[in-house]
Amino acid sequence: MVITFLTDFGLQDDFVGTCHGVIATIAPDARVIDVTHGVRPGHVLQGALVLANTLPYMPPGVHLAVVDPGVGSSRRPLALRDREGRLYVGPDNGLLLPAADSFGGVAEAHELANAEYSLQPVSRTFHGRDLFSPAAAHLAAGVALEELGPPVDADALVRLELPQPEVGQNRIRVVALAVDRFGNVALNLRRDRLEHVELAAGRRVELICRGEHFYAVFARTFADAPRGSLILYEDAYGNLALAVSRGSAAQLLRVEEGAEIVLDLAVR
Amino acid sequence: MVITFLTDFGLQDDFVGTCHGVIATIAPDARVIDVTHGVRPGHVLQGALVLANTLPYMPPGVHLAVVDPGVGSSRRPLALRDREGRLYVGPDNGLLLPAADSFGGVAEAHELANAEYSLQPVSRTFHGRDLFSPAAAHLAAGVALEELGPPVDADALVRLELPQPEVGQNRIRVVALAVDRFGNVALNLRRDRLEHVELAAGRRVELICRGEHFYAVFARTFADAPRGSLILYEDAYGNLALAVSRGSAAQLLRVEEGAEIVLDLAVR
Amino acid sequence: MVITFLTDFGLQDDFVGTCHGVIATIAPDARVIDVTHGVRPGHVLQGALVLANTLPYMPPGVHLAVVDPGVGSSRRPLALRDREGRLYVGPDNGLLLPAADSFGGVAEAHELANAEYSLQPVSRTFHGRDLFSPAAAHLAAGVALEELGPPVDADALVRLELPQPEVGQNRIRVVALAVDRFGNVALNLRRDRLEHVELAAGRRVELICRGEHFYAVFARTFADAPRGSLILYEDAYGNLALAVSRGSAAQLLRVEEGAEIVLDLAVR
Repeated sequence: MVITFLTDFGLQDDFVGTCHGVIATIAPDARVIDVTHGVRPGHVLQGALVLANTLPYMPPGVHLAVVDPGVGSSRRPLALRDREGRLYVGPDNGLLLPAADSFGGVAEAHELANAEYSLQPVSRTFHGRDLFSPAAAHLAAGVALEELGPPVDADALVRLELPQPEVGQNRIRVVALAVDRFGNVALNLRRDRLEHVELAAGRRVELICRGEHFYAVFARTFADAPRGSLILYEDAYGNLALAVSRGSAAQLLRVEEGAEIVLDLAVR
Repeated sequence: MVITFLTDFGLQDDFVGTCHGVIATIAPDARVIDVTHGVRPGHVLQGALVLANTLPYMPPGVHLAVVDPGVGSSRRPLALRDREGRLYVGPDNGLLLPAADSFGGVAEAHELANAEYSLQPVSRTFHGRDLFSPAAAHLAAGVALEELGPPVDADALVRLELPQPEVGQNRIRVVALAVDRFGNVALNLRRDRLEHVELAAGRRVELICRGEHFYAVFARTFADAPRGSLILYEDAYGNLALAVSRGSAAQLLRVEEGAEIVLDLAVR
Repeated sequence: MVITFLTDFGLQDDFVGTCHGVIATIAPDARVIDVTHGVRPGHVLQGALVLANTLPYMPPGVHLAVVDPGVGSSRRPLALRDREGRLYVGPDNGLLLPAADSFGGVAEAHELANAEYSLQPVSRTFHGRDLFSPAAAHLAAGVALEELGPPVDADALVRLELPQPEVGQNRIRVVALAVDRFGNVALNLRRDRLEHVELAAGRRVELICRGEHFYAVFARTFADAPRGSLILYEDAYGNLALAVSRGSAAQLLRVEEGAEIVLDLAVR
């Protein structure tokens, strides 16, 4: 069985490798796919969005995700099943739910409470190693979900508030959801929210960002615009996003994740 | 079958993990070896050199490489076979050819045009996920190369111009091909281009770099020189390279990839 | 058989991927677990500590580790067996011994001298590729340890000096062993060295660091302290460590690996 693995652990330290070791010890035949370990430290929302974006491209299996600033506190450790049969393991801080929701919602949730399926003693600060990886590995090895601990009401699970765009007739207030390695800036605005707007290639859009004004051109891909020009495009996950052809939009706009940007569609 | 995987995607985002998910869904038994995902964003030449350098150390299989600043434009997506039977998947921008050339040259090339072997719809900006990974996975799962699309004349493929050193009697003008994590600087100069020069260990060489003069000593390995001293040596891929023993040559010389350096062998 | 793999190679270059290719060519059925490749370049002590910390979480197998500033010099390349049967491959610079010691000590050591089990020719600067990875792969494929080269007396192996804390009645002089991605600072002080001190949650401790004074509170986990406050806690590997709740202790204290810190337990 496949275990997909997403965290904010980074690859500089041994955290990810140690979890791989724990999984391989418990479930030698499980195959682990690292989705990413580059979520910004402690940014649960970013982790949740990346998990939901990428899950459709992953084979069904156990989906292990750990972005867990509340490790060691009273937040619950969880295992879930969605209505299409995928399994999830991670903290009860909202990280898992956007992904599970896109696969029909949570069918069943259990708290990780059965000491048989964790490493003992469980440390206070590394539940990825001691609690979550063992649970995912045991699930992959065939242990039933309900064996891991008592059921939890799906309605009682912690939910994140996803930042919504404010869509006016011409002005739209959005938030930068993520900045990737290429400096592309994904916005919390899906293409289909702009059905009332004709977004033909070449259309100009004004941006207001930290008080400064910029002009972007709507384009289908990076290569459609001259080198160095700012474009607005629909990214590969269906979000509108900003890029600079062969450059970095994040650097040009001097924005990072969480920044507010106003789009003005009234310009021509 | 083995799929080797080289990109400029970095590991901070989900790009690499998502491609792994796509491959595992299509070809569950394929094994993926990540060559590197640290090619500088958009640097096709660097990607091509790393692919050619490392391929002799990889098991034969499907060699997937994506450094693709022209994604979504009219540049062709390709699958190739070299004359020794290795398969390649990537964009038609020159990335694949130095590697294929070192295995006898291109025997057969096909454009990725068969929608059956891509994810639908193909996004405009993430062909790694929608086009190249599926093609590599289908090849690894046994699909024949010619199934992927119409043949392309090998002579019509885009080729990179590899920067050549200017080798004079004593002066050699070179370019920094790559700077690695240790600050070692690989030059576009193979040891065998200097057969007319006696490069005994301990021989001094003058460098001129951004107008500044430095002295390096020819050495066989880092530990042959005192800590902090600049050495010229033959690196593990047969290029001459600069290093500082227990330090960083890139930092000392303040160079990065693409920088011009003049070597003067006349000093004693 | 499992090969675990720890280096200071980083993931920006192809070093790690090339070693994976070499291993897969020699031992196609071996499974490689990357412990980490983020050890600071050339920091043998840090590599040795990470290897020893993480080994209990790894399945038994061949433990390949390369942090090797002396590559190409006269330092010996080694393969070892510990008294519990785990195998190790790496340079004779002390890197492997703390791990082997925690599994009963070195039972048998051999110098990698048999050319049959290395790539030929062996480069001067990349023994990870040409010497260590092939040796690990051949061991994983069933070659006997003694086939790799002549035995070496375990007492003749190079040993690192592990930095010891100076533990006084109230003052303890410690060293920062490692700084992780979250800015947490692990100290060379195990919880059990402080058995004479009552370290109840909430107890205040003074720190002196580069002449500046700070106050930390002893806590069990990050979430026990208000956001932004400095805590002293026992980390997941049994070391005392410093953290800032939802922040970076390394940044607050402006320390990196190797920094000296004085703890004063006399404050209340």
